[in-house]
Amino acid sequence: MAIKITGAGSYIPTKVTPNQAFEQNDFYNEDGSRFNAENKVIIQKFKSITGIAERRYAENHLNNSDIGAFASKKAIEDANLDPEELDYIILAQNYGDVQYGSHQSDMVPSIATRVKQKLGIKNPKSVAYDVMFGCPGWIEGMIQAYAFMKAEMAEKCLVVGSETLSRVVDTNDRDSMICSDGAGAVILEKTEGEGGILSHESATYAYEEANYIYFGESFNKENKEGTRYIKMLGRKIYEFALNHVPNAMKSCLEKANVDINDVKKILIHQANEKMDEAIVIRFYKLFGMEMPEHIMPMTIDFLGNSSVATIPTLYDLILKGKLENHQINEGDVIIFASVGAGMNINAIVYKV
Amino acid sequence: MAIKITGAGSYIPTKVTPNQAFEQNDFYNEDGSRFNAENKVIIQKFKSITGIAERRYAENHLNNSDIGAFASKKAIEDANLDPEELDYIILAQNYGDVQYGSHQSDMVPSIATRVKQKLGIKNPKSVAYDVMFGCPGWIEGMIQAYAFMKAEMAEKCLVVGSETLSRVVDTNDRDSMICSDGAGAVILEKTEGEGGILSHESATYAYEEANYIYFGESFNKENKEGTRYIKMLGRKIYEFALNHVPNAMKSCLEKANVDINDVKKILIHQANEKMDEAIVIRFYKLFGMEMPEHIMPMTIDFLGNSSVATIPTLYDLILKGKLENHQINEGDVIIFASVGAGMNINAIVYKV
Repeated sequence: MAIKITGAGSYIPTKVTPNQAFEQNDFYNEDGSRFNAENKVIIQKFKSITGIAERRYAENHLNNSDIGAFASKKAIEDANLDPEELDYIILAQNYGDVQYGSHQSDMVPSIATRVKQKLGIKNPKSVAYDVMFGCPGWIEGMIQAYAFMKAEMAEKCLVVGSETLSRVVDTNDRDSMICSDGAGAVILEKTEGEGGILSHESATYAYEEANYIYFGESFNKENKEGTRYIKMLGRKIYEFALNHVPNAMKSCLEKANVDINDVKKILIHQANEKMDEAIVIRFYKLFGMEMPEHIMPMTIDFLGNSSVATIPTLYDLILKGKLENHQINEGDVIIFASVGAGMNINAIVYKV
Repeated sequence: MAIKITGAGSYIPTKVTPNQAFEQNDFYNEDGSRFNAENKVIIQKFKSITGIAERRYAENHLNNSDIGAFASKKAIEDANLDPEELDYIILAQNYGDVQYGSHQSDMVPSIATRVKQKLGIKNPKSVAYDVMFGCPGWIEGMIQAYAFMKAEMAEKCLVVGSETLSRVVDTNDRDSMICSDGAGAVILEKTEGEGGILSHESATYAYEEANYIYFGESFNKENKEGTRYIKMLGRKIYEFALNHVPNAMKSCLEKANVDINDVKKILIHQANEKMDEAIVIRFYKLFGMEMPEHIMPMTIDFLGNSSVATIPTLYDLILKGKLENHQINEGDVIIFASVGAGMNINAIVYKV
């Protein structure tokens, strides 16, 4: 018995937003002081650290649940599945549907229910819920689907990661340039044969770390309307990720009893290219090795950080042959790994 | 092996808000027309249908995560548990932390993470996430904890239901009188012996029903600021619940292989007393029986509809001997059942 991905799909929003789009923004520091550099310089530095050249925003008339449904439809078709057979629709998100121009998160009914409705699924036994676990939410949804299958409570699950971060950014905060929109989905099924999910690892660091990513007011102190936006303590997150993610990945690999040399790809959440490189370099260092070439496929340069959508989108693009220099083949071992608000970390070792 | 509740706790907010508090409200119909009756008459009719005489609101300085932590602390103490041993902190909510006076939902980091932080739990292996499943979220969290235990992924879980509905109501909508705040929590553990969760049942009706409970603008059309509030199609919900909840409870009881005569209590979600009575009457009718006296403990008269908090609070109050005419004793079989936004329905048959 194996618990395997039998189909994948993603939706890449169509509003391409290059770094130049931020040249006229007024950037402030957290303390409200004006950022002491020209925007061109700020953007150049931003690009050199994060690797982000452009990001994608959903069209104004689309909501998170719309793009989640687009990705889900593709995953269902890719798996050649009758969607009425789904036991669970598990959707990872953190801000719900935020209509363009609004500052309210709308998540009642759940985004999973909305996706189910948009897909036209009637079977009430297809249980739809949202999981909130920061950017690692999609991997956590996969682990929950895995639990339901191991517990004999499910055989076929749709696991979606969908987010429109562009609707919750403070345009006076340089970190707004990191955020993008996107949706990715897979079908996870209990199948004959071997492979699939070999091991998983999850952690929540809340004691000191809970507010490294938080909801806060604009850095522009003249904006007194009290609206809050996604905020992050970049330096803290960087150190936290470097200290904890490589060990979590190592622990997960050991549980799977897989040799480090058999790992073909590491699909890691992407919020900052330099941080991801540092994490994977340190991960290999734990085994006394150097990071192999092409081990870490990246999409951040053109997709930015699309939160829960990043990893399933990345997986889908590689499988569909849409990412240069990267392939995933039958029998390959890959690692999914993520870190984000919570602060949460998780990983899955998966054999294709 | 049994999966059992080993401790319970609840927090009942201290701002008692009687029906008279609504006498000065301006009530409108959905179409924006003025409600054609005196408020005293509206309130009297409201009371006779829903059974609600008063409801509780959290103090202005408290958020959803605060009251969730209060209830959790009591549950942990009641179970005499070292909280560092928790494998999961599963928190059901639907609107996050909504600061008093704000219209924004804040749920990054998750409310579960915030509760974990407030409890001072350091162990990163205690995984904290939020589940969104409408009012049935707490029961669904219980089913998820059960899955983790069956899958050998957990032994001790904290399952919390916490909500501050008072922060998302439209005061121009009579349904605002239904809503209240509250938090309830239990510790679920894998233990020796028999009993515990015997069966469970979940369903999501999204095709036609997704928007029976939704987020919509004020009924006062002069309120043009675009803020949205919790809204419900009362008549549709009533019919839906009556058509589906009794069958779901019956199906759950059959899975558990328990005789209807052995059921000692039905702990049902409470949004409307008349609706709950109709559901339980119809449930017994499915067995050709009349509803037994004292089978359905009610708190709605003084607690209103506190969403995900209602059932764990009710359970805690009975166990602590705080609800007149109601007891739960070792060996009793009880049914937990809920219905709410999604539209979701679920049930658990539980042997104490």
